[in-house]
Amino acid sequence: MSQSAQSSKIGILGGGQLGAMLAEAAPALHLTVTILDADPLAPAHHTTAQVTVGNVKDDALLAAWLSQQNLITFENEFIDTAHVARLAPRTLNYAPSLSSIALIQDKLTQKEFLKTAELPVPRFRAVRSAADCTQCAADWGWPIVLKERRNGYDGKGTYVLRGPDAVSVFFGQRTHTGELLAEEFVPFATELAIQIARNDRGEIVHFPVVETFQSNSICLWTKAPALIPTVDISLIEEIATAVMTQLNVVGLWAIELFYTANGDIFINELAPRVHNSGHYTIEGCATSQFAQHLRAISGLPLGTTELKHGGVAMLNILGEFDGEYVILRETPEGSSTEILRAATDDNGAYPLGTNNVVLHWYHKSECRRGRKMGHITAWGDTANAALAAAIGAHKELKLVPGTSRN
Amino acid sequence: MSQSAQSSKIGILGGGQLGAMLAEAAPALHLTVTILDADPLAPAHHTTAQVTVGNVKDDALLAAWLSQQNLITFENEFIDTAHVARLAPRTLNYAPSLSSIALIQDKLTQKEFLKTAELPVPRFRAVRSAADCTQCAADWGWPIVLKERRNGYDGKGTYVLRGPDAVSVFFGQRTHTGELLAEEFVPFATELAIQIARNDRGEIVHFPVVETFQSNSICLWTKAPALIPTVDISLIEEIATAVMTQLNVVGLWAIELFYTANGDIFINELAPRVHNSGHYTIEGCATSQFAQHLRAISGLPLGTTELKHGGVAMLNILGEFDGEYVILRETPEGSSTEILRAATDDNGAYPLGTNNVVLHWYHKSECRRGRKMGHITAWGDTANAALAAAIGAHKELKLVPGTSRN
Repeated sequence: MSQSAQSSKIGILGGGQLGAMLAEAAPALHLTVTILDADPLAPAHHTTAQVTVGNVKDDALLAAWLSQQNLITFENEFIDTAHVARLAPRTLNYAPSLSSIALIQDKLTQKEFLKTAELPVPRFRAVRSAADCTQCAADWGWPIVLKERRNGYDGKGTYVLRGPDAVSVFFGQRTHTGELLAEEFVPFATELAIQIARNDRGEIVHFPVVETFQSNSICLWTKAPALIPTVDISLIEEIATAVMTQLNVVGLWAIELFYTANGDIFINELAPRVHNSGHYTIEGCATSQFAQHLRAISGLPLGTTELKHGGVAMLNILGEFDGEYVILRETPEGSSTEILRAATDDNGAYPLGTNNVVLHWYHKSECRRGRKMGHITAWGDTANAALAAAIGAHKELKLVPGTSRN
Repeated sequence: MSQSAQSSKIGILGGGQLGAMLAEAAPALHLTVTILDADPLAPAHHTTAQVTVGNVKDDALLAAWLSQQNLITFENEFIDTAHVARLAPRTLNYAPSLSSIALIQDKLTQKEFLKTAELPVPRFRAVRSAADCTQCAADWGWPIVLKERRNGYDGKGTYVLRGPDAVSVFFGQRTHTGELLAEEFVPFATELAIQIARNDRGEIVHFPVVETFQSNSICLWTKAPALIPTVDISLIEEIATAVMTQLNVVGLWAIELFYTANGDIFINELAPRVHNSGHYTIEGCATSQFAQHLRAISGLPLGTTELKHGGVAMLNILGEFDGEYVILRETPEGSSTEILRAATDDNGAYPLGTNNVVLHWYHKSECRRGRKMGHITAWGDTANAALAAAIGAHKELKLVPGTSRN
């Protein structure tokens, strides 16, 4: 990592909403980022960052792009690390390291690392057959959770099997040939997450623990601070610190956790990058997860992360149809406006009428069912008050098929 | 209270959804209830109960109706208890007592009772003027909460004033002349409720503690069990028991509470009746709050109240327009059905496609903005899983202007 941060050329692999929000945090830190994404309409095109349109599978293009950077970081963990390493200059820096991403992107090696580090994870085992699964259930009880070892997100590639019949059906219908991981089912009462950053001097700063709420494995909302005992907050911070230290991570990661009614804590998954569970930090914390990641990887001092409000909530806006869209705000008084024609604030967000709710829009070219199209952040005296404000603002939004008048 | 429960004539004052759900619980207990409501289209008309259409302000009608009952119970606390007592036969029984309802319906006397009983309540004071309010804020800090002493519900008649300017505006605009109660603002992290029943032999049975989520003071959802420490559950049960014992209550009441991030508990309000926060008990508990109330007031043994599932959630369906309506279910596969044409289950609810979600519809004659039109109850391994199922089912419902094909 370069100590002369501002002169470093930072390349981000991926220009979806995560890459775009990283890019939006760069100018205030006097950093310049360049993004590579195959989609000519990717969200990053709506930022001031330079975006190279190109597929990472185009060897010549990737090699040329990599050769122009000093430091590479990542929007997501679904990359062929060996392919990148083979095409890149030997002196290129990565944050986090390619080896840590390779470890995390395989859910089995990720879990093995955590178990070896004596961090709390549900019991797990690599499985290949229905008989393997039945043995897991014999050892742990039903249900069991099956996961594709690679490329799962938003619940894709994760299956909860509640009995032998479900196992038979699963293996009978399966067309995918990837390897599988079986996990003990944890009857968690709620899900939590924490963002944590570490720089190349080993300095570590963690964010507040945030409660996340999923439906069908897709996050609907998050709220912070999580209403759990202080002793459990401390334990989660220790777990997160252990992960970052033992893997020598430089950058910001998110750790997703299960929390049971007994107060037991299990790591669900590691995300080696900025994460949906930390979007609330843009308005909610003294430093956002995006700015913190850039600070960590570029050798700048890490920022403080205290909550700026009593409570903060984030609500994802998920697409409910496929195709072109218009997003309107219909006030209780009956007026209707196209939100995206309004001016954005310093964070690139659209104020939603009151002074404690904003909309972050990802400017995706089309709406799709279940796609994350944007998010609302609200703040107030408490996390629940903030969530109520976010829900109220969401009710005034109409995401409908159509073409903008712009 | 008559020991020969089944021969008792039980009259319910009020035929909204609460009266209707009480009526629906009667046949299984071999009880017969009669309802008085002024609205010829009130929800209770969709039950098997006998409903007398008549206004409680019609003295002759009320006197005649009261004279035909042995025992009177109440759907809500907004009744003129002196008026009822004056018109009723002297031997008529009431459960709960008219005096307890009179005590509760005035938020000041309710709070004074709780304070005298040394139960935890926010600091409060009767106020008449802006100067009184300013003095409260000087003593407690801003914001302060102002409440009309009588007739408030769903946040109507409750105002959070954040500074001297808000006090001036409030008293400058106020047209209402009722007396006011000022309360210290409690920065609660979440709201909780508990249902508790007591019969005339002094036997008490409490329900699980349920977490409630409000937006703009209207309940959006509840979920049980509440994720709070066992010691706090016990404390809430003790508080509820003290209320019921000291007021010698016969029947089921709900107690709404604030819960802070420090684990402090305050009583917010008492509801001397079945309550929205307990709707989840119909499918969620071994005995519903409605059956339990009828059991308590008619001298039947109280039922057990353990949760029947790992977690249960209830989601209110609130009207978003004014006028006639149709409620449709649109499945992800694209089919659309009028739900109210389907058959109901033993609880009068409509199954929503899966085997863990039902819709209770109140059959109100018209939709109105913010009006509680029905509710969804879902259950699963945990309260959050149940809430996710309820939210998923709600997304498939379309409550739209129109006239049913029925």
